[in-house]
Order: sequence, then structure tokens, then C-alpha cells
Amino acid sequence: MGNPAKYFVTGAAGFIGSNLVDRLLSLGHEVIGYDNLSTGQERFLELATPHPAFQLIRGDLLEFDRLSQAMRGCEMVFHLAANADVRFGTDHPRRDLDQNAVATWNVLEAMRGNDIRRIAFSSTGSVYGEAQVIPTPENCPFPVQTSLYGASKLAAEGMIAAYCEGFGMQGLIFRFVSILGARYSHGHVFDFSKQLLEHPGRLRVLGNGRQRKSYLHVEDCVDAILRAMDQVEDKIAIFNLGTSEYCEVNDSIGWICERLGVQPRLEYTGGDRGWIGDNPFIFLDCSRMRSLGWEPRYPIREAVGKTIQYLIDNPWLFASRT
Amino acid sequence: MGNPAKYFVTGAAGFIGSNLVDRLLSLGHEVIGYDNLSTGQERFLELATPHPAFQLIRGDLLEFDRLSQAMRGCEMVFHLAANADVRFGTDHPRRDLDQNAVATWNVLEAMRGNDIRRIAFSSTGSVYGEAQVIPTPENCPFPVQTSLYGASKLAAEGMIAAYCEGFGMQGLIFRFVSILGARYSHGHVFDFSKQLLEHPGRLRVLGNGRQRKSYLHVEDCVDAILRAMDQVEDKIAIFNLGTSEYCEVNDSIGWICERLGVQPRLEYTGGDRGWIGDNPFIFLDCSRMRSLGWEPRYPIREAVGKTIQYLIDNPWLFASRT
Repeated sequence: MGNPAKYFVTGAAGFIGSNLVDRLLSLGHEVIGYDNLSTGQERFLELATPHPAFQLIRGDLLEFDRLSQAMRGCEMVFHLAANADVRFGTDHPRRDLDQNAVATWNVLEAMRGNDIRRIAFSSTGSVYGEAQVIPTPENCPFPVQTSLYGASKLAAEGMIAAYCEGFGMQGLIFRFVSILGARYSHGHVFDFSKQLLEHPGRLRVLGNGRQRKSYLHVEDCVDAILRAMDQVEDKIAIFNLGTSEYCEVNDSIGWICERLGVQPRLEYTGGDRGWIGDNPFIFLDCSRMRSLGWEPRYPIREAVGKTIQYLIDNPWLFASRT
Repeated sequence: MGNPAKYFVTGAAGFIGSNLVDRLLSLGHEVIGYDNLSTGQERFLELATPHPAFQLIRGDLLEFDRLSQAMRGCEMVFHLAANADVRFGTDHPRRDLDQNAVATWNVLEAMRGNDIRRIAFSSTGSVYGEAQVIPTPENCPFPVQTSLYGASKLAAEGMIAAYCEGFGMQGLIFRFVSILGARYSHGHVFDFSKQLLEHPGRLRVLGNGRQRKSYLHVEDCVDAILRAMDQVEDKIAIFNLGTSEYCEVNDSIGWICERLGVQPRLEYTGGDRGWIGDNPFIFLDCSRMRSLGWEPRYPIREAVGKTIQYLIDNPWLFASRT
């Protein structure tokens, strides 16, 4: 990240994207953000928008020509845009294919047309399906997919790797656990906080609450991406990103209730997972990323606490997600 | 395969598809074949076409409504249609995505709409990329993709598994080595035979000829698919299909030359692989399939020999592939 450069960020108005944009700008880089604002929020870019080195282009990744033109002159692409709605895959099964797989193909093809040779991609621990080895390393036994979300992210990973091999690009792929922090706007902690701020007396919990979850704070996530970018020269490199601890859904419920000062009646739907295709336990072995000198700063409990504080301070976010 | 049933075969006019169709008909089943005849050959269906239990519907897998209507009333889908052109992925990078990944999504979605709950799918040993373990078992270390073909087949596998998980289907996935036999019409043995029948004096060989290849005869392949169908009840089951031996490209050249009675000058392009993304060695551990009692009948040399004889007897096939 030494010399100032011009970067392209897809999903720039999203949770992780906007945090990355702010960081790149603070490091003196120029950033073109691309977002269709379907789930992204212009308010997430309130720091970036006035910045002279930032430009937001409103566009969809499925509009190939627009995408290709927007990307022109950039040195590297951070491809963070995605259908991140893991849970409702079976309600609209085409969405993952389009927004994760086909969209990624468009990004790669636009890069090729513009002679852009580096990409960083946000994949997911969901590609491990029901992992046989826990904590799960990047080279664990070849998994069987359990969700359309995971399958579509794996499809995107595969295309990126094939483009790197076939067209001389470099690809950095990051398999995330759930990410928390400022601008976090979907997932357990969001749902629970939303419920409790509306009805402090009860909390509906999908599953039995014993599902184990691993979280990483978004600042640690951005740190890892930038560090790998600086240090890694392999044609294709895959890194798990998470902390070395996990919690149960019930733990995070306790922390949220404590923070909000509420004592709700807990209503469990039962079963060992929240929904079909939910993975009861994603816990990643992140020693490959650690070997680059990266270490997450925020333990899970602190990441959850900071996230709840952000949600309390930004109640507009709940209204925007109905 | 006990009771007569009605099956749907995509790629019915293709090499493997047409062999499967003939077998299903000979077992007393009803078959709807679906093919866009882009690479399939109507002549491959010359046995099936007059059969009263067979119907060919000419259509593309990307025409969703046509596909969905054609499938109505079938009990199971054999999804064999694919862009099988492994080698030229980088010449038309969208083709694998459309014809392998998006097409498979259409098949799954049409199945769901028609309440068809079983699918058998032809995947490929190419999903193992540059395998770290050889012979490669199905649960080898999570591979990195090296070709758009492999990546798109893996995308299809992942969607099938996710549909099985999310919608209560059953999926049988077969990862093939290269298949040989009657109606074989692309790959090394085809290219070499074609060259030598045109110019017996010289043979151009991509790479150094030392690439090791594993082959399976199409009859053994069809046997395996039908046996797994009969015996396996897992929600999702993945089987490698190959023989327990391999050969070098140079071996197959020797057998072809012997069979054709030619002694060409060999012109190697050099390097340890034929093209970017070519895998120098696909050799699969097929013990999972063997544990069902399956054993290939044809050793590689015999499979190559039978294939060459087929090509000699069917010179029209060369003319159709220019």
C-alpha cells in the first residue's frame, strides 16, 4: 500500500466495502466505488463522499458495459459486492447465482478488458459446508456445499482462480467468518438488537441458541486484506479470516441483553440450526493469515459490544431494513 | 433400475448421453432426450430414434420454459449436457459459465418446478485442479481451480448439493476422467487419429507427450452411473470414475500408430502441459465407486483400441468436427 494508487471497490456502499473505502482514502489512495445501492447505504459513505479522491458510480455488476467503463484506469479491484443474504437462499434461488457467480464473472471479464491484474475477493467460511475438520484450514478435505450462498461464492472463487491461471492475474481470496463492527447491518446481532429495541420483553431465536458462531471485527478484516495485498505475491492465495475464539448464539444474546439493559423472555424455535442450510458451526483456522504477522485486535465479546453501540447510535439503520 | 421409469437425459445426443440413452432403452425405460445439437449428433441417436419409448426434444438448457416443459412427468434427470471443450476455455470464457453453471441452475430449477427429486450429474476430475494427492480421492484437500471448465463444473456441483440440502432432492455426482468408446468425439485420441488419417507422415503433439492421462470406457462409465443409482440413497453422493491405471500421451500415440499402421514424425510443442490450464495428471482414486461392486471391464489400452476402431469405422465424425 506504499505508493498512492487508484483502486476499484465493488459494494463500496456496503458494510465491509465502505469501511475499506474509508481506509484506502485515509492511506492517500484514490478510490472508485461501485454499488447499485440495493443493500448498500449512501450514509455509509458520508466520510468518503466529500473526499476529493473518491467517486461513487451507481451501477449494477450485471450491467457489463457500465462496470467495464467505471473500472478503467484502476490498478486493482476489491470485489466485495455480493448477495450476502445467506439465510433466504431457497426463497430466491437465482439471486446467489446472478449476484455472486455471474457478477464475479463480469468483474473478471471487465478487469481483463481493462488490463487490471489484481483482485481481492470476499468469500466466506460457508464454502466449507459442514466442515469435517474444526477449526477448518483452507486446505481441509474437499467439502460438499450446503447452501446456495456458499455454492455461489465457491463458484466465484473458482472463476477467479481460473482467470489468474489463464490470464496472468493475481487473486487474493478471503474466506470470512461473520463480520461485526460499524455499519454492520445483517445477521444475528442485528436481528436480536432490532427485536429487543422494538420489544424488550421477548426475543425469538432461530434454532436452540447453541449454534456456535465465530465473528471478526471489520477493522481487523480490513487490516488483513491490506496486509495480504502488501505481502503476498502468489498467483492465487486463499486466507481464512476470523478470530481464534467462538461463542454460542446464547452468549451473544447475553452480551446484547446486558448492553441494552433488558431481560427478555427467550423463545427458541428449536433444532440445532437456524434454518435449512444454516451451518451450526463455522470456525476457521486462520494460521495462514497469522503467519503474515496479522492478529485481530478485537475479541468477539468486544466486537459484539462495539457493534451494539453502533446500532444504538444509528437507529435509522433498522428502519432501512424492514 | 428395477421398474420401468421415465428418465430425462440432457445432452442426449452427445457422446456419453447417447450411450446412456441406448442403455436405458435396452433396460425397458422410457427416455426423454434433450439436446440443442450444438455438439451432439443426431446420428448418435440412430438406435434410439426409432424406439417407441424415446423422444428427442431439441432445445437449449438456457431456454428455461422449454426445458421445464420437456421435463414434465420424468422421475429422474441425468444431466450430461455441458460445454466439454476443456481446452479453449480462455478463448470464450463466458461459455463455461453459461453452459455448465447457469444451465445446471436451470435444470435444478426446472426439476424443482416439476417436483423431480433425483439428479445424476457428470462432473470432472478437472475440479481437482493440480491435485496434491494422487490418486486423488473425492475428499482430497480442498483444491484451487485451474480452468474455467473445472470451475464451472464445481459451480454446478455446488448448486446441486445446495438444492439437495435445501429442497430435499438427491444428487449423484460423478467426477470423470476422460471417457473413451463409441461416439467419442473430442480429446487427444480423437485429435491424433484425425491428424494421422489426414497426414500419416507427421503428428503434432501439444506439450512434451509425457502428460499422464487416465481414461475410462463409456460402457464402464454408464455401468457405474446406473449402479450408483440403484444402490445409493444418500442425499448427496460424489464418486470418482476412472480405471486404476494411467498412461502417458506417448503411450496412446504408440497404440494409435500401431492400430493405424503409421509411423509419423512426432512434433512436440514442448512443456509439461498441452495448454494453459491443462492438467498434466488426472488420476483418480475410485475406491468409493468400487466399494459398490463396480469394476471397469476395459483396461485403457483396450479402450483406446476400441475407440480408434470406432473412429476408423465412422469417418463422417471427423468431417463434422472441423
